[in-house]
Amino acid sequence: MRKILILNGPNLNLLGKREPSVYGDRSFEDFFHELKEAYRDRAELEYFQSNVEGVLIDKIHEAGFASDGIVFNAGAYTHTSIALADAIRAVPAPVVEVHISNVHAREEYRRHSFLAPACKGCIAGFGLDSYRLAVEALLTPNP
Amino acid sequence: MRKILILNGPNLNLLGKREPSVYGDRSFEDFFHELKEAYRDRAELEYFQSNVEGVLIDKIHEAGFASDGIVFNAGAYTHTSIALADAIRAVPAPVVEVHISNVHAREEYRRHSFLAPACKGCIAGFGLDSYRLAVEALLTPNP
Amino acid sequence: MRKILILNGPNLNLLGKREPSVYGDRSFEDFFHELKEAYRDRAELEYFQSNVEGVLIDKIHEAGFASDGIVFNAGAYTHTSIALADAIRAVPAPVVEVHISNVHAREEYRRHSFLAPACKGCIAGFGLDSYRLAVEALLTPNP
Amino acid sequence: MRKILILNGPNLNLLGKREPSVYGDRSFEDFFHELKEAYRDRAELEYFQSNVEGVLIDKIHEAGFASDGIVFNAGAYTHTSIALADAIRAVPAPVVEVHISNVHAREEYRRHSFLAPACKGCIAGFGLDSYRLAVEALLTPNP
Amino acid sequence: MRKILILNGPNLNLLGKREPSVYGDRSFEDFFHELKEAYRDRAELEYFQSNVEGVLIDKIHEAGFASDGIVFNAGAYTHTSIALADAIRAVPAPVVEVHISNVHAREEYRRHSFLAPACKGCIAGFGLDSYRLAVEALLTPNP
Amino acid sequence: MRKILILNGPNLNLLGKREPSVYGDRSFEDFFHELKEAYRDRAELEYFQSNVEGVLIDKIHEAGFASDGIVFNAGAYTHTSIALADAIRAVPAPVVEVHISNVHAREEYRRHSFLAPACKGCIAGFGLDSYRLAVEALLTPNP
Amino acid sequence: MRKILILNGPNLNLLGKREPSVYGDRSFEDFFHELKEAYRDRAELEYFQSNVEGVLIDKIHEAGFASDGIVFNAGAYTHTSIALADAIRAVPAPVVEVHISNVHAREEYRRHSFLAPACKGCIAGFGLDSYRLAVEALLTPNP
Amino acid sequence: MRKILILNGPNLNLLGKREPSVYGDRSFEDFFHELKEAYRDRAELEYFQSNVEGVLIDKIHEAGFASDGIVFNAGAYTHTSIALADAIRAVPAPVVEVHISNVHAREEYRRHSFLAPACKGCIAGFGLDSYRLAVEALLTPNP
Amino acid sequence: MRKILILNGPNLNLLGKREPSVYGDRSFEDFFHELKEAYRDRAELEYFQSNVEGVLIDKIHEAGFASDGIVFNAGAYTHTSIALADAIRAVPAPVVEVHISNVHAREEYRRHSFLAPACKGCIAGFGLDSYRLAVEALLTPNP
Amino acid sequence: MRKILILNGPNLNLLGKREPSVYGDRSFEDFFHELKEAYRDRAELEYFQSNVEGVLIDKIHEAGFASDGIVFNAGAYTHTSIALADAIRAVPAPVVEVHISNVHAREEYRRHSFLAPACKGCIAGFGLDSYRLAVEALLTPNP
Amino acid sequence: MRKILILNGPNLNLLGKREPSVYGDRSFEDFFHELKEAYRDRAELEYFQSNVEGVLIDKIHEAGFASDGIVFNAGAYTHTSIALADAIRAVPAPVVEVHISNVHAREEYRRHSFLAPACKGCIAGFGLDSYRLAVEALLTPNP
Amino acid sequence: MRKILILNGPNLNLLGKREPSVYGDRSFEDFFHELKEAYRDRAELEYFQSNVEGVLIDKIHEAGFASDGIVFNAGAYTHTSIALADAIRAVPAPVVEVHISNVHAREEYRRHSFLAPACKGCIAGFGLDSYRLAVEALLTPNP
Repeated sequence: MRKILILNGPNLNLLGKREPSVYGDRSFEDFFHELKEAYRDRAELEYFQSNVEGVLIDKIHEAGFASDGIVFNAGAYTHTSIALADAIRAVPAPVVEVHISNVHAREEYRRHSFLAPACKGCIAGFGLDSYRLAVEALLTPNP
Repeated sequence: MRKILILNGPNLNLLGKREPSVYGDRSFEDFFHELKEAYRDRAELEYFQSNVEGVLIDKIHEAGFASDGIVFNAGAYTHTSIALADAIRAVPAPVVEVHISNVHAREEYRRHSFLAPACKGCIAGFGLDSYRLAVEALLTPNP
Repeated sequence: MRKILILNGPNLNLLGKREPSVYGDRSFEDFFHELKEAYRDRAELEYFQSNVEGVLIDKIHEAGFASDGIVFNAGAYTHTSIALADAIRAVPAPVVEVHISNVHAREEYRRHSFLAPACKGCIAGFGLDSYRLAVEALLTPNP
Repeated sequence: MRKILILNGPNLNLLGKREPSVYGDRSFEDFFHELKEAYRDRAELEYFQSNVEGVLIDKIHEAGFASDGIVFNAGAYTHTSIALADAIRAVPAPVVEVHISNVHAREEYRRHSFLAPACKGCIAGFGLDSYRLAVEALLTPNP
Repeated sequence: MRKILILNGPNLNLLGKREPSVYGDRSFEDFFHELKEAYRDRAELEYFQSNVEGVLIDKIHEAGFASDGIVFNAGAYTHTSIALADAIRAVPAPVVEVHISNVHAREEYRRHSFLAPACKGCIAGFGLDSYRLAVEALLTPNP
Repeated sequence: MRKILILNGPNLNLLGKREPSVYGDRSFEDFFHELKEAYRDRAELEYFQSNVEGVLIDKIHEAGFASDGIVFNAGAYTHTSIALADAIRAVPAPVVEVHISNVHAREEYRRHSFLAPACKGCIAGFGLDSYRLAVEALLTPNP
Repeated sequence: MRKILILNGPNLNLLGKREPSVYGDRSFEDFFHELKEAYRDRAELEYFQSNVEGVLIDKIHEAGFASDGIVFNAGAYTHTSIALADAIRAVPAPVVEVHISNVHAREEYRRHSFLAPACKGCIAGFGLDSYRLAVEALLTPNP
Repeated sequence: MRKILILNGPNLNLLGKREPSVYGDRSFEDFFHELKEAYRDRAELEYFQSNVEGVLIDKIHEAGFASDGIVFNAGAYTHTSIALADAIRAVPAPVVEVHISNVHAREEYRRHSFLAPACKGCIAGFGLDSYRLAVEALLTPNP
Repeated sequence: MRKILILNGPNLNLLGKREPSVYGDRSFEDFFHELKEAYRDRAELEYFQSNVEGVLIDKIHEAGFASDGIVFNAGAYTHTSIALADAIRAVPAPVVEVHISNVHAREEYRRHSFLAPACKGCIAGFGLDSYRLAVEALLTPNP
Repeated sequence: MRKILILNGPNLNLLGKREPSVYGDRSFEDFFHELKEAYRDRAELEYFQSNVEGVLIDKIHEAGFASDGIVFNAGAYTHTSIALADAIRAVPAPVVEVHISNVHAREEYRRHSFLAPACKGCIAGFGLDSYRLAVEALLTPNP
Repeated sequence: MRKILILNGPNLNLLGKREPSVYGDRSFEDFFHELKEAYRDRAELEYFQSNVEGVLIDKIHEAGFASDGIVFNAGAYTHTSIALADAIRAVPAPVVEVHISNVHAREEYRRHSFLAPACKGCIAGFGLDSYRLAVEALLTPNP
Repeated sequence: MRKILILNGPNLNLLGKREPSVYGDRSFEDFFHELKEAYRDRAELEYFQSNVEGVLIDKIHEAGFASDGIVFNAGAYTHTSIALADAIRAVPAPVVEVHISNVHAREEYRRHSFLAPACKGCIAGFGLDSYRLAVEALLTPNP
């Protein structure tokens, strides 16, 4: 069974509290619990969150060798962190960039992603369902 | 049953012939046949392709009022067409932008999308599976 | 009696349906009928719309030699089409650029017009009345 | 009867003397006299000119509360004055930006207008007739 | 009594040691002690410093729900951190950006603040007195 | 007793009338009267407003040698006037830049200040209270 | 015998009518007739023109697999069309970009070509003789 | 005898007081007196200064028709005023741009001059002697 | 018989040695010998190479008055030398810019040519055959 | 004996595992052991690595006062961290920036270093030998 | 008696031949002869010209220590040569930048001078008289 | 024994005379004599300097095939010469870019190097010791 890490970056611990009109009013833990159940036959899902860029790098280093894929919502670090992009390039596991909101429809500076070129693919705009689609993508063999 | 249009823009008629190292060696028609079968119980899928920007606009106008969603790979028009973005904004059906390759890992000018801010969401980098994930996304209710 | 072509570009066929808060809720055909009547003694008005850039070029080539002026709302092609600007420069009839909304008060990328330097003048922001003012302008001799 | 102020900015006092190939060889006073006569039944036209940015702001503050519209040719301040744009936004009367020449066909730095987003609309390129069309526009109800 | 957090970012722990010609030669702890005393009747002041961006985010999450305002000198993160700006936007407490030196008179890259648009207001250039003015500002009701 | 000039630039004479949602609905004269009273024991406050850039320069030249500090809200000239910055640099009295609204949270072009590098410091975003904080700052000795 | 397509883009159907000082006063059909005759022993020349970007793409798809080379004057689409560049990259036949005038000596925006990097080479500035030189180039083997 | 106006813009009334290390410590009036005497046989020199952009425009309009040349130090308006450049273009008298300091060796924004392209020539960097050289230049016939 | 100079700039003396995958493995002298022979009846070809920008200018000054045309591969000076462009503009003989490789398909900074606007035309991408096509172009009368 | 800290930033813990074609296949620990031995008579070398920007700042604060020099490879933080540059400026010990690969030959965004202006000097491109050269540099007195 | 070098850069040897509408039709040698005569009592003038940047640097090194001033028209190297600016900074003699035409009224790329910040001052636009004014400037003591 | 060329570009012949606060007060010849002696057992060092870009190219062509490495301080040509970068790429010997001062801490335009991507590595900021470190680097085998 494939092991997949769901990794959340800065401020995503506030999900459900923070700007509900943009991010919805549901906590990520609730959502993760359901997702884990739904995929229990096809994948082993793990969840980790940190607000510290370097701790996210540590986690990518660890899971990037030990798991079969990472679903990564780097929050605002998406737009500023070359170090996270380097971490993604440094590990063999494929990483899928996800965003809850359609980042392209927001501020100009949210339209550039340092991570995207290092990732296998990107999924954005489908609310929390973006995470499920990313898990789907990692479970589907494609060249 | 939900009606979904899969709409392909310029050069995607060459799929399977064009730069197979980037786009794969399978024709889109073969892929679409399988996809349609796979979703026959959940959605009615239609397929249309044109190399003409204005004909794509015409199709969005038509399907944007008559269907429940559009999966749109606008090819290179993604990066140059404000008119297609306006067409998407002008219709009620949600549109999902898809790309076969990870456009962010290619030339700089492929990293900007005029369409993205007008779309519900974006999915890129999963080969032809990007289309299936987009259909999934359109069939999933999310706020 | 002077012959004037009113030429509309992409998405303007949806007028009355598309973003009514920006463009109003009246179809262009209704408006054109009234305008034609109002000017019947002073000008012969014709109307043409297409979503295809190249078909608009064809029409400018045709009317640019056969009419006394063109009132042109190029929609989003205003901001992206050098080819339309070249078409305008290539014909003897004066062309007036019109916009329904005040394009300068919208997205940044709507503030640049490739067509404007090739046109006789520009009128923007007066709703459908912009077209009437442009017809007025074309009927008034000025150096 | 509607009161409309025609307001001219820097260097427009030289009209008829300055670069006649661009601006024509007629003084604005002559033109204004004719225009006032032509509209005497429909509007009460007033005329004011200053080369001082701050005096133009003073006049907008005054007429912006006391008249039904302002036809404003801000000359070169169009391209440099945020303060005039703020003055326009600060008053209830609609302001129409006009230009004698087609500013878009001239130097690059004349293509950007700070005022345009604050105005109701813009009319450029029709010689002195631009002013008449602007008066027309202000006298026509449109949503 | 209102609770206010004074939050200092990277390198501000060196205050008194670092570039005294720019930042003065007094340690922040000494200053804070005096400030706390001076406001003891009007506010309960707390102080926290970290060089780690993510730890500052954690602290904003905590104090942003538990206090009545945050006085935040983010040091160099002011110019690079979208994640801190997102944290500020995510909490209900008002945040005031402060700087000891006049950041606008220094290097070009210190003139852009990602935080400022997310903050209630900014105070810069008054040495350590900037902090006192920020506390004043938070204690004064203003719409 | 210290003499301080409060100097307001373009459009601030409309305070209370202009865009009340941004600037509040109180006239500056009322506010100034209260402020003057509040500080009567510590400072002699004078007030001057003009919409003319050059008149503001004249005033800075005068008060910059005759007073102990200037609280300056240059309105839109903040973003366009190098001449005012030169005036500030030319006089010995310290100048504090103030803004009623948080200029950084508004249009992009309001985020650059030519004046800031020439001023002692900046205070923005606290409504009319920004002026009081600036007076406070000028009355507090700091190196 | 080698088959070569000469492909002309927007506004080139007006050759001989349009801006003769830039493009000359001879129709392309006349020129093509002579060229075809001159090369009858060495190559089979075909000619096609369209103002529609998508129709040009269709033609490149067709001739790109069926001929030995394409001489392509894309007119203004040279500067705006990534889709045409993608079409050129998608076919095996070599494509030579030609221009009648020296595009580098004209407007700034005519100096950038999206097509050039996808083409074998470029020839510009020799009037209609540019086409003949391109045919020469395609008939000469070079590594 | 030729009439020449020496025209000084903003802050130059402070000469001798303002930043003496950059501008010297001598008042312009003293210098002008000497210069006038030195040239009394060859030219009639007049002097005018204003801090108001529009008043400088008024003066150029007046002297530009009534004198044989203008020596103009526009101070900071050099870098921001298109209106002054338009005024210079609008009058027949040649205008020479002068600067006391070497503006190119100062802040980046002092290196761009809107006035220079409209002037006959420029002289900068020779202290007050720049004015004398400009008078020399205007008195020397050259094609 | 027409005299034509073939002029090569920096590093082209290494042809055959330098990056053979980009520039081929044949020395220019060998190629020139063949070319001279092939054209012996139609033109008198001369060849010159220097790595020194100023020596190339000297040669253009000389041949630009003494020959009927110059075929110029300026190598990297193409992208950096305004002085060479000035030299080309200063002489009556037409100059054709040539490049061996398709410069547009290489580094971004190789896509801008200071020389192109001063030349009659450009030919790039056909290996050493670019030189032959340029000679052809110079021998063909065209308006 | 001089004390020197070798400080490594993000992802350098993966050395030997990460992109060996760029960074080589040897772990840093192995290399450091050899280096320490080689310099045992001339310097006391210490090694520290962290992926957390703020922890690197802490270490610079500590070693910057306690050691005689720091050899710092900040990895991707080189290009994004003003806070690290401030830390370097805040301490008395000289810091040498090192890079294993030639950062200038890689992606554009790796060519800008925020740290370089704050460092004593830079050494890049010599593989792990860059570190040895930096130690050499710190042990050599030079003005 | 003061020794002054007049130094001319690329293409100025063609003066009188090159673009006479811009540069006049008189050779520099003729002009220099007259100038030398005119100043024979006040200065010893020498003249040197080269098209080679490095030879100009050599000459500046030589004359920069041996003469009392250099009048330098660097032609196009003005806009591209940092090395010449460094040479000017490296010598004690003051250098005055001169231009025959008003460079600011020509192409955009002629408006930036690398040399200007290194020179004492600049004189442009007065035809060959610019050189005389520069000699005047060097002979006049000014602080 | 390895042969190494030390190559100096423009203005470095003035070392010891030019801006001693930046470059030190010692002539390069003195330094080179010592360096040559110090390395006499390990390398044969040669030294060459020229102010002419093309002569430096000639030297690189020569030494690039005949020596084992080049230590190159290109002075200001570092920032402007693509031709030197091409020369470096054209030869087999490794080239190390050196700078005496920390170029990154000086003017903005000194922070970009055209040469760096073509070189093996870069060393900057260690005074004349930068040359010794570069020789060290060339003598050390590293992959």
